Amino acid sequence: MYVGILGATGAVGQKFIRLLQNHPWFKIAALGASHRSAGKKYKDAANWIEDVALPDYIAEMTVANCDPAEFGNVDFVFSGLDSSVAGEIEGAFAKAGIPVISNAKNYRMDPTVPLLVPEVNPDHIELIKTQTFTEDGSGWIVTNPNCVAVPLSLALKPIYDAFGIEAMVVTTMQAISGAGYPGVPSMDILGNVVPFISGEEPKIAPETQKLLGKLDRGTLKTPGYPVQATCTRVPTLNGHMAAVTVKLANKPSSIKEVKEVVLTFENPIAHLELPFAPKEVIKLHEEERFPQPRLHADHENGMQLHMGRLREAEVFDLSFVCMAHNTIRGAAGGAILNAELLVKKGYME
Amino acid sequence: MYVGILGATGAVGQKFIRLLQNHPWFKIAALGASHRSAGKKYKDAANWIEDVALPDYIAEMTVANCDPAEFGNVDFVFSGLDSSVAGEIEGAFAKAGIPVISNAKNYRMDPTVPLLVPEVNPDHIELIKTQTFTEDGSGWIVTNPNCVAVPLSLALKPIYDAFGIEAMVVTTMQAISGAGYPGVPSMDILGNVVPFISGEEPKIAPETQKLLGKLDRGTLKTPGYPVQATCTRVPTLNGHMAAVTVKLANKPSSIKEVKEVVLTFENPIAHLELPFAPKEVIKLHEEERFPQPRLHADHENGMQLHMGRLREAEVFDLSFVCMAHNTIRGAAGGAILNAELLVKKGYME
Amino acid sequence: MYVGILGATGAVGQKFIRLLQNHPWFKIAALGASHRSAGKKYKDAANWIEDVALPDYIAEMTVANCDPAEFGNVDFVFSGLDSSVAGEIEGAFAKAGIPVISNAKNYRMDPTVPLLVPEVNPDHIELIKTQTFTEDGSGWIVTNPNCVAVPLSLALKPIYDAFGIEAMVVTTMQAISGAGYPGVPSMDILGNVVPFISGEEPKIAPETQKLLGKLDRGTLKTPGYPVQATCTRVPTLNGHMAAVTVKLANKPSSIKEVKEVVLTFENPIAHLELPFAPKEVIKLHEEERFPQPRLHADHENGMQLHMGRLREAEVFDLSFVCMAHNTIRGAAGGAILNAELLVKKGYME
Amino acid sequence: MYVGILGATGAVGQKFIRLLQNHPWFKIAALGASHRSAGKKYKDAANWIEDVALPDYIAEMTVANCDPAEFGNVDFVFSGLDSSVAGEIEGAFAKAGIPVISNAKNYRMDPTVPLLVPEVNPDHIELIKTQTFTEDGSGWIVTNPNCVAVPLSLALKPIYDAFGIEAMVVTTMQAISGAGYPGVPSMDILGNVVPFISGEEPKIAPETQKLLGKLDRGTLKTPGYPVQATCTRVPTLNGHMAAVTVKLANKPSSIKEVKEVVLTFENPIAHLELPFAPKEVIKLHEEERFPQPRLHADHENGMQLHMGRLREAEVFDLSFVCMAHNTIRGAAGGAILNAELLVKKGYME
Repeated sequence: MYVGILGATGAVGQKFIRLLQNHPWFKIAALGASHRSAGKKYKDAANWIEDVALPDYIAEMTVANCDPAEFGNVDFVFSGLDSSVAGEIEGAFAKAGIPVISNAKNYRMDPTVPLLVPEVNPDHIELIKTQTFTEDGSGWIVTNPNCVAVPLSLALKPIYDAFGIEAMVVTTMQAISGAGYPGVPSMDILGNVVPFISGEEPKIAPETQKLLGKLDRGTLKTPGYPVQATCTRVPTLNGHMAAVTVKLANKPSSIKEVKEVVLTFENPIAHLELPFAPKEVIKLHEEERFPQPRLHADHENGMQLHMGRLREAEVFDLSFVCMAHNTIRGAAGGAILNAELLVKKGYME
Repeated sequence: MYVGILGATGAVGQKFIRLLQNHPWFKIAALGASHRSAGKKYKDAANWIEDVALPDYIAEMTVANCDPAEFGNVDFVFSGLDSSVAGEIEGAFAKAGIPVISNAKNYRMDPTVPLLVPEVNPDHIELIKTQTFTEDGSGWIVTNPNCVAVPLSLALKPIYDAFGIEAMVVTTMQAISGAGYPGVPSMDILGNVVPFISGEEPKIAPETQKLLGKLDRGTLKTPGYPVQATCTRVPTLNGHMAAVTVKLANKPSSIKEVKEVVLTFENPIAHLELPFAPKEVIKLHEEERFPQPRLHADHENGMQLHMGRLREAEVFDLSFVCMAHNTIRGAAGGAILNAELLVKKGYME
Repeated sequence: MYVGILGATGAVGQKFIRLLQNHPWFKIAALGASHRSAGKKYKDAANWIEDVALPDYIAEMTVANCDPAEFGNVDFVFSGLDSSVAGEIEGAFAKAGIPVISNAKNYRMDPTVPLLVPEVNPDHIELIKTQTFTEDGSGWIVTNPNCVAVPLSLALKPIYDAFGIEAMVVTTMQAISGAGYPGVPSMDILGNVVPFISGEEPKIAPETQKLLGKLDRGTLKTPGYPVQATCTRVPTLNGHMAAVTVKLANKPSSIKEVKEVVLTFENPIAHLELPFAPKEVIKLHEEERFPQPRLHADHENGMQLHMGRLREAEVFDLSFVCMAHNTIRGAAGGAILNAELLVKKGYME
Repeated sequence: MYVGILGATGAVGQKFIRLLQNHPWFKIAALGASHRSAGKKYKDAANWIEDVALPDYIAEMTVANCDPAEFGNVDFVFSGLDSSVAGEIEGAFAKAGIPVISNAKNYRMDPTVPLLVPEVNPDHIELIKTQTFTEDGSGWIVTNPNCVAVPLSLALKPIYDAFGIEAMVVTTMQAISGAGYPGVPSMDILGNVVPFISGEEPKIAPETQKLLGKLDRGTLKTPGYPVQATCTRVPTLNGHMAAVTVKLANKPSSIKEVKEVVLTFENPIAHLELPFAPKEVIKLHEEERFPQPRLHADHENGMQLHMGRLREAEVFDLSFVCMAHNTIRGAAGGAILNAELLVKKGYME
């Protein structure tokens, strides 16, 4: 299938290009960016920051405007657009009958738009049918969550299903790549911690709740547990870490029972053998010093969720840390897995 | 007064030397270390890691064994000993009639030993009278808390006194200097987070509770709030940061009331004008991106407690971050302030 | 004396403010910045990045435009202006009769403008008399060199005077603070080396040659040794390091002779007792692992030049490393020392 | 073929395990380490520091002593031993008829031992025939160079062959992984540069000269150009960078001619299609900000040599920077490529 990338010159757009270059199903056929870049060769428009070489055929492609009229040859688009422009542009593509697999936040909380993590809530893709961008249903939008909501939802899913969640306190230690490029000035973060990330904390409750919600005759029933979050920036490159304490609705008999629940998590998309799906969705580390962003973020091509330090808590019931690659699992890679699921389920052909 | 330093070649010992070199009251008269170092000139025994020059007169001093017999000329000693040897050596000094101002953990939870932060519990020094190291009371031990318990107790003190504390969830982001030298291998921490620090989490509840305890006719009544802690190591040099969420016994009417309580904290030692006492004990930052270890850990000579992000919490009642210099306020500097208080109160002459 | 600061909100401007706040001779009376900042309180116009608190009286000062008409009350100005605007603005101040002590590059190579490092070429201030900004000589410009030329000139001075220099190969490892704020993106430098700094290498030969030049009846005779420089950026905060190999005109009899020359360097301004002058201008380290930016850049208030690894070279004659604090000795602090010398020499009253 | 790894628990040994786990020709059949580790399962003996998971079959292997008697089932061994023991152990294996592909320094300068970089001096393997460890020639030693000599020799090879080299000045910026584990304390290197690496500088001249030497009727004729080296440690993870200035024997007509020579370098092993051989041996970057350790060290599985900033020099003739992955190209990966060449050439069957 032929795909386009919106926001192709940005950090997320570059990650899409990197991850898609040898994809067995998808071939990049169009690159969209701002007016400033449109008309240039990609290699001249983008400041390539990935640690692999820019593929030659991408380097020579001409960047288009983010206008559906210039994307006639694609089956769907990935969007790595900034939220300041994503709302309008993604809507225009959907209206033009081009499905949008978006990493932007704009449509995430729209009740007709699936906020999707395939291992967590694959059935939510049915919501697509409630979208009204086009009369014939050919244009629609699917989103992936914020880069912190991704690891949290993957870690919480088996626990939520087994015990229910009544409250969560979370502190994150987030990597610099989460802020894009140029992003965080080195003077701010070298040997430092910044105890605030603008706009990050308010996303955690609604996004994880929507992800854990149950579709009931076309309507999403979402849990309402309160979340207290502190999001910090630390000098790591990739991999957002979260330290989590949760109150459970039904008390497990022991920590062993909780570990069993995590270790026997039934991955609902395992049988689909999607190219970007990790074999082991949740890696539960027993060594107390693990997981670590530098050592584990790239495992299973950056698509694995890492949990560790799972233990009974003195306050509430359960504590653990979880970590995933923020720009792969938490952004571009997650979007690609979403697209793979949608293809396999017949939403795109 | 003449002071000795036990564990003088280690990271904490070096910090004592650095901080004491121009002290108005205390003059270093003896340096103690292990057998391996004893007999050598300090400059040959120690691998000086401080970012100021090693003072010449210290460089030429001969290192002694940590034996009271070799410390005849001192009025008291500071101990930066490792906990593997601190118990025995500090006890020996106390029995020899030499007061010990210790940074080690060994005697912290001894009910007769003050665990002291002068701005938090100065009255606890009375416990000294219950010690039995010597018949005439000339030898005794006072300790300062773990480098995380120090900022936590300073931040919690006004809140605890005003509202009471029923539970606390805390995640720390701790600097590499907390592990001494050589300490954390660079391969473990460069661009990384390690979500575990051996032995750290279990200290937080008992130490902060002892600090907030009330002396009632010679007996310490300590609160029993549960604490859920996750202690992590991050690539910062100095300054332990903690993200805290607390449940209060008595609900404040508003976050403004909590801020008032913090801002009007009455420093019980303000009138003593101790040389190492910070003028403003608690700096409450209003900018959400503050405090930061690199920017603020050195303020007021590293003796200030920094709070920020004070806000109502979705879970429980109150969230904030706090940060202090871990090897100054949280170790050597805190011990020096303890000694100053004890001198001023007449315990040492 | 009352001083103004041009470019007061930038990184160098902030360093001027920090360093001048307790200066015994100079008091900040005016702060100039771009139109965007003019009219605002300083605390609202600047994103304070120093690791000490912004002084209250500065915080409340209103920022002016960089227009001599708005600086009527100052005796002279320090300029931390960006080179894109420094040429015009500094010229305007000089023409208005206000001496300019500049950190910008624009006038450095002007044959009538002293490029000044007080310990290296204090006699060059005579060049001021050849300037023609004003008829009565009341307005003029003095510059300090690039932050790499400063440590190089200080290290080369005794060697050049004793042996002459015929060629130099230098590789620098420069700190992120040299690029200002926001400056280097963290994605570019965390755990990385960038082997190029735009515009840096071509400054080294002409600036060090001008600094080592001799005034001969009003004309500067400058040496013409070739310089091959590679300037790199490394993830350090402060302190530019340089690895240097030089060919000497007259061969020393031994490395011991070279060390003697360095250790007995006669500081031409020692007797003036200027407030910002380091007591020991050149610290020659004998330990091979020294100097190090993190350990030594702040010594003597950041004004000391550190040399180390002084040794005979296999190629040419002599190798060494040198390091100095790039934003203090190499920028704002160096400019302040220049101003102090000019005051002492009667150029400003 | 079945291979053993000597020093299997160390940093280089771990890299061997990681790199060999899917090797098409070699299968790990024995792991040797010190007495302390021997008899334990590998997972219990080693502190795995690689950022991929420890392969299960390795985890469960029992560690042997580094004794040929315990390695009966291997065709040859890779040695990642520390130099303190490598001399004796490697010699013992060679005498026992087990070829040793070593990363240790002990035999590098032995005139009968090839110091081998396959793209530089593949013909040097003939020296094996002059070794006398065994009568039948079944046991011998081949070494790969120091992790700095590897990138230098690869960069210098085409230049040396075309123009000759008369002198070299080099400054290195070396990654922390070069010191093994625990290696460099984080307190020494976080935000710092250390301008000295013990034992590193003296290796550069003899090793690069031996690599560039010509075999003439069984004897190696090596060039004698002087080298002035300054080796520094910087806070990067992988990838040693070197800034080089060289004097050439025959002057190129222009920098374009030099670039041609580099770009048309004829890789003498290209036709052998060895599994670990990079397709493009030398990547010559045109962008001045490249190469960078973080962006380029992993290209071509860490086996590529990166050059950049190739330019005419003001001093001597030519300057450039070069960089390669120090623990892959510069250690374990280089050794594996050596083994592949030796297999292909019939030295091991």
